[in-house]
Amino acid sequence: MSNWIYPDFEFKPKRPLFLCIMSNTDTGKIPGISAAGTTPYLTDYTPGGDAELVETNKIMTMPELPEAPGGSPTPAIVTKAALNLSGIPSLFVASGLRVKPAIPYMEIGGSPGHDIRKESAVEGVEGIYQRAELAGKKLAKLSDCVFIGESIAGGTTTALAVLKALGYDANVSSSFATNPVELKQKVVAEAMKRAGISLGGFKNDPLRAVAEMGDPMMPCALGLMKGLKGAKVVMSGGTQMATVLALAKALDIEGDICIATTKYIDDDKSASFRKIVEETGRPYYFSDPGLERSKIPPVQIYAQGYVKEGVGMGGAVLAASLYGVTQAEIVEEADRVLMTVELPKK
Amino acid sequence: MSNWIYPDFEFKPKRPLFLCIMSNTDTGKIPGISAAGTTPYLTDYTPGGDAELVETNKIMTMPELPEAPGGSPTPAIVTKAALNLSGIPSLFVASGLRVKPAIPYMEIGGSPGHDIRKESAVEGVEGIYQRAELAGKKLAKLSDCVFIGESIAGGTTTALAVLKALGYDANVSSSFATNPVELKQKVVAEAMKRAGISLGGFKNDPLRAVAEMGDPMMPCALGLMKGLKGAKVVMSGGTQMATVLALAKALDIEGDICIATTKYIDDDKSASFRKIVEETGRPYYFSDPGLERSKIPPVQIYAQGYVKEGVGMGGAVLAASLYGVTQAEIVEEADRVLMTVELPKK
Repeated sequence: MSNWIYPDFEFKPKRPLFLCIMSNTDTGKIPGISAAGTTPYLTDYTPGGDAELVETNKIMTMPELPEAPGGSPTPAIVTKAALNLSGIPSLFVASGLRVKPAIPYMEIGGSPGHDIRKESAVEGVEGIYQRAELAGKKLAKLSDCVFIGESIAGGTTTALAVLKALGYDANVSSSFATNPVELKQKVVAEAMKRAGISLGGFKNDPLRAVAEMGDPMMPCALGLMKGLKGAKVVMSGGTQMATVLALAKALDIEGDICIATTKYIDDDKSASFRKIVEETGRPYYFSDPGLERSKIPPVQIYAQGYVKEGVGMGGAVLAASLYGVTQAEIVEEADRVLMTVELPKK
Repeated sequence: MSNWIYPDFEFKPKRPLFLCIMSNTDTGKIPGISAAGTTPYLTDYTPGGDAELVETNKIMTMPELPEAPGGSPTPAIVTKAALNLSGIPSLFVASGLRVKPAIPYMEIGGSPGHDIRKESAVEGVEGIYQRAELAGKKLAKLSDCVFIGESIAGGTTTALAVLKALGYDANVSSSFATNPVELKQKVVAEAMKRAGISLGGFKNDPLRAVAEMGDPMMPCALGLMKGLKGAKVVMSGGTQMATVLALAKALDIEGDICIATTKYIDDDKSASFRKIVEETGRPYYFSDPGLERSKIPPVQIYAQGYVKEGVGMGGAVLAASLYGVTQAEIVEEADRVLMTVELPKK
C-alpha cells in the first residue's frame, strides 16, 4: 500500500513486460497540436528518440532530445527510471512508424497516419490489428502481465476524433500545460465533415472509426490486447489509451484489462479520463511520479501540468512500485537519466 | 527417452521460445551456391517466406513457396509442424534482411551481406552484435530456454569462410543433396585472397572474421547468445550454427549453450558438424524428423539428404519432443502444413 499509487493495485506480476507502441500521424504535424517535438518536422523522430532513450540512454536517430516546446524533456526519462530500478524488460513496437530507431524493436508494419482533416486516417487497419494480435498471442505465453504505453505525437487529437465517432461526448488531455482544446475541436470537426459523419457516426463500426479518424497506434494496441488474453493487460496512458479501451469495448475484446496513468492526467480538468474509462467498465489506477521533488526545473514543471503522460510513464511508475521502488528513488533516477543521456554530436 | 532424439536432452523448459534469424547475403546469389530459392533472385525473399509460412501458413511477400531447385519444400514446414503441435511460441528476428515479411518480427537492423569474393562481408558488425545482445537480455527475463534457428541462403558458404578465417580445417553442409563443395571452396579461396589472409588469419579477431568473411546472421546470433546468459540456449542448425559456436568460443561468450540439428546433418559425410562442435566443447543433439514416412515425395527425399536443415528444423523437432509430440505426429502435421499452405495468386 502506498499513497502515491491509487487505488491499490492488488496483483504482483511474476514476469512483467513493458511494451511501448511507436507510431506517427501527420495529424501531429498540424502546428500547435502536439508538444511532443519542438517542431512539427521533429514529431516523426520522437517515438524512435523515446525508444533509444529507454533502451540505451543514448539518442541516435533524432537530432536532439525529444522534448516539448517549453523545454520539458520527454516523459521517457521517467519511464526509463522506473524500468531501470525495477528491472522490468521493455520492448518497443513499431506500427505505422516513419523513422525507425537504432535499437531492437518489434515491427508490426503499416504506414504512418494521415492528416485526418484531409483524408482517411489509417491504411490497412485490419492487417495491423491481425498482426498485432498474433504478436500478443506469443507474448501471452511469456509474460503474465503486460503494460502497453505509446509514443505518438498528435495522438490525443486523433483520440478525440475517434471518441466523437464512437459517440462519446468527452474531451482529451494534452502535452501542453494549456490544452489547445479549441484547435483540437476544430481539427476534429473538419475531419468529421470530411468523413461525412456526426457524433456517434461510426458507433457500430469501431475499426472504421480508426481507419477514418484514428492513428496507427490504435489498431496495434487493440490487436495486442486481444492477443494477450490470458495475461493481465495494463494499458499505460491517459486519454489516448482510454480511447483504445472505448474501441475495445465496441469490438467486444475480452480479458483482464485495466488502465494506469499519472496523477497529472487525473488532475487535468480539461480532459475526461475518468468519464471515458468508467463508460468502458474497466478499472483505472493512478501513479504520482512526484516530479515536484526533481532538482531540474523543466522536470519539476511536469507536476504543474506540463507533459502529464506519454511513453507509458504512469504504468511504468506503477509497475516499479510493485517491486518496492519508492517515489523518491524514481525522481532521483529520472534526474540522473536526464543528466547522463548521450546526445548526437551537432 | 526416445530413439529419434539422441543423446537424451535432459531439460524440460517451462517457458520455451523459438527464435529464427532472417538475413540475406549476396554470396547466396552466386549461381549454384544455395538451394534455398529456385533462382538467385528469389533468395532475398526466402527468409521472409519462411517466416510467413511458420507464423500464418500463408505466403504473402514471396511469389511462390520457398523451395529448393529439385522441388523440395522449405524445412519451415517441419518447423511449423513442430511448433503447432507443441504450442511453443516463435519470434522471427531480422538482421541485414532485404525483403521484410508481412508478419510481426523483431528488427535488429543492419544491411544485407555482400559477395565475399568482392568486398567485406558485413557492415556494422559491432552494432548488430550490441543490439542483438540487448534483445537477448530482455528475452532472458521472459524465457528459460531459447532455441535459435536461421534462414539465410548462402549461409553455409560464409560459414565455411569464417571457419577457415578462424583456422578450422573443416567442411560444411549444403541444402543440395550433392554438396557443391568445390564451388564453395573456390568462393572461399577467392574471399581469403581478397581479404589478404591464409588459414586462421582472423583467429584472434572473430568479429573481423564476420565482417570480412561472414554474413549478418552471425553477429545477431552471437549477440542474442551473449544477452541470453541465464537462460538455456539451444542453437538450432547445422554447420552454420556450429560456426557461430566457434565464433562464440573465440569471443569467450559464456552460458548454458548447446546445439541441436537433424540426423540428416549427422549423416552428411561431406560436412564436419561433430568435429567443429567438439572443438568448441559444447554439447550437441540430433533429432530425426522421420520424413521418409511422409506421403509427399518431395518431402520424403529430405531423408535422402536433400535440404537437411534450416529454419531451426532440428531444434524445433527436439523441442516438440520434450512435450510428448511423436515423430509420426510431426510428419503427418508437416504434410498437412504443406498441403494447406496458402500461396499468392499468380
